[in-house]
Amino acid sequence: MTIATGSLERMGKDAKEASFALAALSGKQKAALLLFLADTLEANMDAILQANAEDVAAGREAGLTEGLLDRLFLDAGRVSGIARDVRAVSALPDPVGEVLDGRSLDNGLFLVRRRVPLGVVAAIYEARPNVTIDVASLCLKTGNAVILRGGKETVRTNAVLVSLIQLALERHDLPRQAVQAITDPDRSLVTALLQLDRYVDMLIPRGGAGLHRLCRENSRIPVITGGIGVCHIVVDQSADLAAALPLIENAKVQRPSVCNSVETVLVHRNIAAEFLPRLAAHLTPLGVTLHAGEAALGYLAGHPDVVVPVQAEEYDREWLSLDLNVEVVDSVEDAVRHIREHGSGHSEAILTESMTEAEYFIQAVDAAAVYVNASTRFTDGGEFGLGAEVAISTQKLHARGPMGLDALTTYKWVAQGRYTVRK
Amino acid sequence: MTIATGSLERMGKDAKEASFALAALSGKQKAALLLFLADTLEANMDAILQANAEDVAAGREAGLTEGLLDRLFLDAGRVSGIARDVRAVSALPDPVGEVLDGRSLDNGLFLVRRRVPLGVVAAIYEARPNVTIDVASLCLKTGNAVILRGGKETVRTNAVLVSLIQLALERHDLPRQAVQAITDPDRSLVTALLQLDRYVDMLIPRGGAGLHRLCRENSRIPVITGGIGVCHIVVDQSADLAAALPLIENAKVQRPSVCNSVETVLVHRNIAAEFLPRLAAHLTPLGVTLHAGEAALGYLAGHPDVVVPVQAEEYDREWLSLDLNVEVVDSVEDAVRHIREHGSGHSEAILTESMTEAEYFIQAVDAAAVYVNASTRFTDGGEFGLGAEVAISTQKLHARGPMGLDALTTYKWVAQGRYTVRK
Repeated sequence: MTIATGSLERMGKDAKEASFALAALSGKQKAALLLFLADTLEANMDAILQANAEDVAAGREAGLTEGLLDRLFLDAGRVSGIARDVRAVSALPDPVGEVLDGRSLDNGLFLVRRRVPLGVVAAIYEARPNVTIDVASLCLKTGNAVILRGGKETVRTNAVLVSLIQLALERHDLPRQAVQAITDPDRSLVTALLQLDRYVDMLIPRGGAGLHRLCRENSRIPVITGGIGVCHIVVDQSADLAAALPLIENAKVQRPSVCNSVETVLVHRNIAAEFLPRLAAHLTPLGVTLHAGEAALGYLAGHPDVVVPVQAEEYDREWLSLDLNVEVVDSVEDAVRHIREHGSGHSEAILTESMTEAEYFIQAVDAAAVYVNASTRFTDGGEFGLGAEVAISTQKLHARGPMGLDALTTYKWVAQGRYTVRK
Repeated sequence: MTIATGSLERMGKDAKEASFALAALSGKQKAALLLFLADTLEANMDAILQANAEDVAAGREAGLTEGLLDRLFLDAGRVSGIARDVRAVSALPDPVGEVLDGRSLDNGLFLVRRRVPLGVVAAIYEARPNVTIDVASLCLKTGNAVILRGGKETVRTNAVLVSLIQLALERHDLPRQAVQAITDPDRSLVTALLQLDRYVDMLIPRGGAGLHRLCRENSRIPVITGGIGVCHIVVDQSADLAAALPLIENAKVQRPSVCNSVETVLVHRNIAAEFLPRLAAHLTPLGVTLHAGEAALGYLAGHPDVVVPVQAEEYDREWLSLDLNVEVVDSVEDAVRHIREHGSGHSEAILTESMTEAEYFIQAVDAAAVYVNASTRFTDGGEFGLGAEVAISTQKLHARGPMGLDALTTYKWVAQGRYTVRK
């Protein structure tokens, strides 16, 4: 064991120990801790901005893209926004302690399931420093300790943020080890972290497909993977075509860089001749490039500037850009087959007036969120009314789709008897 | 890719395809399928018993222990028992299709969460052929396809059982690939199976600690680990000591070989002098050996035949035998510290008349099941009223403790709009 992984073991042990103190807190105590943290962030604005300016300068020198630099960058407005988010989390109902169900059993036990914190959560993420506060506040709200591993680009900002969180913990007589950060940029520490299943109960990767794959393939800790959205909209023959145009625009153009934006539109053959040219005409002025399948290409001859033939592998690609695949399908069944082959289980939509086709689509498509006559862009904790979003899961265990605070909890079975024995 | 792992890939793909057909079945159809399967098992009693006799003979020749041979062995009574269990599963309510919750959102969506099958489950288990039918019937009941990997000792029995399941599937116009078995004894296939996360949604190991560790360390598929029970009973100073004796007897002696039997009894110092000799006197005639900690030893000098000094590592050991650790603790807090260090998060009990100590113990002990004045032996799907037991989970994600049919399901978010777009 190297010194570094030895200290990681220590970190895990400390986090587990700290988690016991957090689990015993009342909702009121956790809310007060978070309000104090929000105030502390604003009161230490200068220190945060100075560390961040150093991170940004170092990042610029290291040749980070403007996009990455923007994710990294904080100003007073952004810090206030982060503090506001912490206050919003503080104000949410505390899920811990809820009784999920219970009954008196014939065997003499009175049995209830009580919602409890998971224990220790680990989060691995990339350049954005707001994730540090976001994940920490969600974990503290639910009584979990957390080990954070942010991107190396943001190490100075994160050091200040974590020290402010630890200050807030200490002022509330809580162990500072409740929130710890791995600041050593050595990548082998990530691999070592993934082996800490003895102490860490759940791992949340927040980043691109590569990070999720790394975690799924190497982690002994249960992982919540997700975030990759290869999303489809099926335009059935009975769809309201005029209404479909702004809906597809919303799904593609409103925020192309996010996981719930649409990748591929599948158009029923019976309306393809009418709809595809209208779609091209609608999206062209918005800067969208259509990647057309073989059948679709024939209907789009009038739009040579914005239409290119789709490459087979592009059906599996999360665009995150103003690119959109379009293809013709013979039926909704045919569309479902396409989605089963290429979808990532994130968000899938059908536009139809047919109850039968809608119900078939809902049943047959295996995805976290299935939409009828709505944009895929709604897959989001806020839009779904969850109050906060921990992550979006595209796996099926524990939590699927937008994960709220509940996803940071588990339950224990509590049974009371009168010196009751099993017969 | 070897031919064998290539065929495993095919198996996964076929299972996924078959899962779509299963997911579309009504509760009535699934119940009918299982009743037919139960009848088919009894109608083919001779073929099952003949294959099993060959497995038992081969096992005897290979030098299997009598214990293993007994697990492997089937007779007419055991096969009828298996068929009866299938009928019981058939009669359970179908969890699939349940609406978990729902609401009309301000953004214009009508949103519900629908319970749906997981998709494809894989199970890895050891010698007992009843697990083949047990896991298959639970999966079919919940609309999941399943890939089974049983022990090589039971390969002939399993071949017959799986062919009968596939016969039942075909008679109901369902793909036989809904239930498939890996019969090739090559152990590298297990490793390859653990990489099939593209097709398999959940992995259930049913076996000892080694199998669970293998799966946790190597699986890309989300695993439900559990089954290892290092369980404690704390005898607080206010406990009813007369009632504590038969309770501890129940937890240790009724069925020592199972995960919910007790490993360690922790006795409050203030009653140790009275209780420990009574405990020894009570358990001695039942064949129990006490492994006493340093402090406990002093109180047990009168029982040299049945008391040995505990070895430090025995506090972490799942006994599965008539052995029991005993030690003295200064307080319930002290007992909780011991449990945090040595418990496996399975089942923990306190015997006390103090509401305060009971509530502290419930809150502070991090385990799937926490008991007040009841035996640890109750941790069981049947005893908890779940109807069926898929496994007992000691991890915290997805399901904790006894897992019923619900644990073989997930949910999808279904949102209906009127060509609704995100603002």
